[in-house]
Amino acid sequence: MEAARTALAEKPPSLDGLLALAAPDMAAVDALIRRHMDSPVPVIPALADHLIAGSAKRLRPLLTVAAARLAGARDDACLKLAAAVEFIHTATLLHDDVVDSSQLRRGRVAAHLIWGAPSSVLVGDFLFARAFELMVGSGSMPALEILARASRVIAEGEVLQLTRAHDMDLSQEVYLDIIRAKTAELFAAAAEAGAVSAGAPPERCRALRQYGQDLGLAFQLVDDALDYSGDSATLGKNPGDDFREGKATLPLLLAMARTPTEREFWVRTVDRRDQADGDFERARELMRQTGALDATLALAAGYAASAKAALADFGANAWRPALEDLADFAVLRRA
Amino acid sequence: MEAARTALAEKPPSLDGLLALAAPDMAAVDALIRRHMDSPVPVIPALADHLIAGSAKRLRPLLTVAAARLAGARDDACLKLAAAVEFIHTATLLHDDVVDSSQLRRGRVAAHLIWGAPSSVLVGDFLFARAFELMVGSGSMPALEILARASRVIAEGEVLQLTRAHDMDLSQEVYLDIIRAKTAELFAAAAEAGAVSAGAPPERCRALRQYGQDLGLAFQLVDDALDYSGDSATLGKNPGDDFREGKATLPLLLAMARTPTEREFWVRTVDRRDQADGDFERARELMRQTGALDATLALAAGYAASAKAALADFGANAWRPALEDLADFAVLRRA
Repeated sequence: MEAARTALAEKPPSLDGLLALAAPDMAAVDALIRRHMDSPVPVIPALADHLIAGSAKRLRPLLTVAAARLAGARDDACLKLAAAVEFIHTATLLHDDVVDSSQLRRGRVAAHLIWGAPSSVLVGDFLFARAFELMVGSGSMPALEILARASRVIAEGEVLQLTRAHDMDLSQEVYLDIIRAKTAELFAAAAEAGAVSAGAPPERCRALRQYGQDLGLAFQLVDDALDYSGDSATLGKNPGDDFREGKATLPLLLAMARTPTEREFWVRTVDRRDQADGDFERARELMRQTGALDATLALAAGYAASAKAALADFGANAWRPALEDLADFAVLRRA
Repeated sequence: MEAARTALAEKPPSLDGLLALAAPDMAAVDALIRRHMDSPVPVIPALADHLIAGSAKRLRPLLTVAAARLAGARDDACLKLAAAVEFIHTATLLHDDVVDSSQLRRGRVAAHLIWGAPSSVLVGDFLFARAFELMVGSGSMPALEILARASRVIAEGEVLQLTRAHDMDLSQEVYLDIIRAKTAELFAAAAEAGAVSAGAPPERCRALRQYGQDLGLAFQLVDDALDYSGDSATLGKNPGDDFREGKATLPLLLAMARTPTEREFWVRTVDRRDQADGDFERARELMRQTGALDATLALAAGYAASAKAALADFGANAWRPALEDLADFAVLRRA
């Protein structure tokens, strides 16, 4: 896997093509986001902007726009849906950071540490409601259905993660269920809603949903690996957060399964969360030695390949190679 | 006012007529609520049921059903909307109790004290998303627009209240803005969405929206008065909660304005929230002496009268007197 990673890395993944193609649409999405995060209650735009301005890539709305255009959208129905997708995502981040007591998000101090947890909860609710207002504005009931369902599945995934977070015996299957719900579902819905709003035939909508889901799985797997292998300057958050919280992500689950003689170390640090200096470094070393990080990245690469395969039936269209690059980027990024 | 209250009280307000009329519809709404709060993640139905089972009256969904039937609804499109309205309401209660650190809700220990604040936040998100899935199921885009907007206005009202909660100099106008947003908006939207789903003409939809808004204002004003005049056995929550939190509700604002010589007492107990035994009783006594409670109830009675007036153009229909009774009940209830 490290070899595969190196080989691919020779051609560094770039989103430049996709970002250039999407630039006019994304400027319009940005304007919609700015306009709809406004409110006569001053703390709302202040808090929302703290998070939204920190999002450089706007990956999920980008997915909505790209899926719509690849599916042949000629009008701008996808733009409001794209803004709605970003609002749903931002709302879940605000609530997640309260739930996890996270310190850092997108390279900035987490909003609840500045404005307090109550404001973060309520501004999350505001953004979630705004998302649905934007969807109503798009006029597409099928897209509304897709994104309402996704919002519910995300919440179920978050609760499942909350109740199973510290379960050292979590199976890979349940771990994948969790990330499919809490992360991949919004990627899937973002792409599917874009395709649906373009009036694409059902099989094209399904293909783009599959692309989004596989991309989302690859994305989350790499995120979970980066939490052990990245550095804070590049990440925009502290590496080791998952370990300190005893969060049962795949790299940790694999490392624990592959080091039965270290059971005492894992029980103390993960199950009891009784950690000392050097514990994180030791966990990381065990992950490298056992190939747990490589296995996680290999699984991510598999999902990225599957994402690209889902685009096979789309004809010559500049958006297709751009979305293929996005799948490579998901795996090869360093942050 | 006390005289008016006594006179009206001779004919005790009853919801029996309304509840009997609505019984078949509300049984169907209840079944929808049960079915849609289910989830493969066990903590979700457990936590949701804790709150939903505690709601005896289901006032807001009742409003949706009654408005739809008064407006001539012959199909069951209003039922899913009514269930959605209850889910939106339950979601905001869950988040409110986390935000306010409330101890008691509907006569039961607040959910966040049993399952933790993170679960309450996330199950609130689940119910909110479920509400939108139900609205999509109703197929009415105009109703969706009304309830999406209401959800956003409620969140704005909650944030406004959070930032101004302890403001001793809050004007009556801003206080009314807050309760119009955080409470009356959902009553207004519940009634309007019912009317819209029945295909009622715009002036009927506006009239029912007005009825709902005035009813909601009356309801919240009486709630705020009961927090000083009620007892915990009847209320299902602790009286004096607002005072202990230093929450600037109308009875308190009026009492403070009418007792300038007590400024020191109010600054200590409300602004600094430095309270001792007997302070709540003294505040309550000042409210009675200055007529602050009566003035609050008089304002509520005015809104109830306005609510009834909004129904003037509806013809002979059993739902109309039932909704008039509901307006009286809002003012004359003891809990």
